[in-house]
Amino acid sequence: MAGVPFRSPSTGSKIRAVLFDTFGTVVDWRTGIAAAVADYAARHELEVDAFAFADRWRARYRPSMGAILSGTREFVILDVLHRENLDFALRESGIDPTNHDAGELDELARAWHVLTPWPDSVPGLTALKTDYIIGPLSNGNTSLLLDMAKNAGIPWDVIIGSDINRKYKPDPQAYLRTAQFLGLHPSEVMLAAAHNDDLEAAHAVGLATAFILRPVEHGPHQSSDLASTGSWDISATDITHLAALLRAGSTG
Amino acid sequence: MAGVPFRSPSTGSKIRAVLFDTFGTVVDWRTGIAAAVADYAARHELEVDAFAFADRWRARYRPSMGAILSGTREFVILDVLHRENLDFALRESGIDPTNHDAGELDELARAWHVLTPWPDSVPGLTALKTDYIIGPLSNGNTSLLLDMAKNAGIPWDVIIGSDINRKYKPDPQAYLRTAQFLGLHPSEVMLAAAHNDDLEAAHAVGLATAFILRPVEHGPHQSSDLASTGSWDISATDITHLAALLRAGSTG
Repeated sequence: MAGVPFRSPSTGSKIRAVLFDTFGTVVDWRTGIAAAVADYAARHELEVDAFAFADRWRARYRPSMGAILSGTREFVILDVLHRENLDFALRESGIDPTNHDAGELDELARAWHVLTPWPDSVPGLTALKTDYIIGPLSNGNTSLLLDMAKNAGIPWDVIIGSDINRKYKPDPQAYLRTAQFLGLHPSEVMLAAAHNDDLEAAHAVGLATAFILRPVEHGPHQSSDLASTGSWDISATDITHLAALLRAGSTG
Repeated sequence: MAGVPFRSPSTGSKIRAVLFDTFGTVVDWRTGIAAAVADYAARHELEVDAFAFADRWRARYRPSMGAILSGTREFVILDVLHRENLDFALRESGIDPTNHDAGELDELARAWHVLTPWPDSVPGLTALKTDYIIGPLSNGNTSLLLDMAKNAGIPWDVIIGSDINRKYKPDPQAYLRTAQFLGLHPSEVMLAAAHNDDLEAAHAVGLATAFILRPVEHGPHQSSDLASTGSWDISATDITHLAALLRAGSTG
């Protein structure tokens, strides 16, 4: 049953597309990466704390984009950065990656392609899909996001990976080019994300915004993004809640 | 139930993605465009043969891409060409487009966004989706293909419109860049199309190929593409037949 499109208080427009940050917002990267690391460690008889390793690997995520965001490095896809960052995390853990089979490390890095959604993600997205265009607005490359969706049954309507825009968030063009490919004005696009800084960047270029609470994305001791810190259009406890709020025309 | 991936006799690879020409192969553009033209003509008391007008409009399709394919015109999206070609078809029909409201003509040109699939298209694509990545490989822009899919329930996994590649078929890059965004070798991608020239271009750059028979795409007197004219991997009577042949490991 189709509902009335939600009108964003901040942009004044009816929302046509709800796009999602992916890592942390839609999928639980930490559990999935830790499981892949634990499996690799067991097969290679390595002593590593798999969750700590996952955190170390992820901690390189934003720094590794720095040179691309500042324009001193040509754009490379996130698969390349994940692979480089794996070597970095191995060295930080006292493991020399050159003693490991490069193909096997490539395979380990592909764990980022097959992460598991939070329990509410697929039901919530399925509910949203009736009334809105749904897709990722992620730093993942298209093939990563596609593999993730096929593996987990995420019902995206469209996938505009960062390799299509050749820009990483929070570059304004990451948001604006995506809206353009969808044939929409930025004000008709809502970004849903668990990260206030991502919402800040989207808001700054005219998108509507929804905060999704993901209190254990970084594990049980998470201290960041435990509440919305901006005046976002919507604040939701998860994606099914977002769907219900949009359907009700409420801002949460 | 997942099946064994089909191995292409021509490329020697297991197929991972089956991509579709859209206009004519997945959707019946002629009936849909004629209906939109008939509606417009009735509202404006114009005397036009709606099917003849649809044919005239479509006849400009390939010629209007000529300058872009040859590099003498910058890439513009198919929405722009469809709109220009509408003015051309109006003039050919003795109608001066400058006597018509430009916004209403824009709306008429949007009929290309909401075409109806052939009856076998959605069931066939749904069957293929279990075992393969499915998507369009079309000259349509992303927003056109997205609107079409949302409107008709076409279950694409991914949409790489021609505005993403900034190349129109049969430019080799239209096929090759699409495979690259999917993270696949061209030999792992199959193009399914009702047009032998499209299959020829895809085959020339290393894609697998499937001919889909659409004997009334151009109406009851169609004389072209009534049979496959190349040694394509598969020849199918429609998309459900293609799904059955791929499942059976047969080439038809």
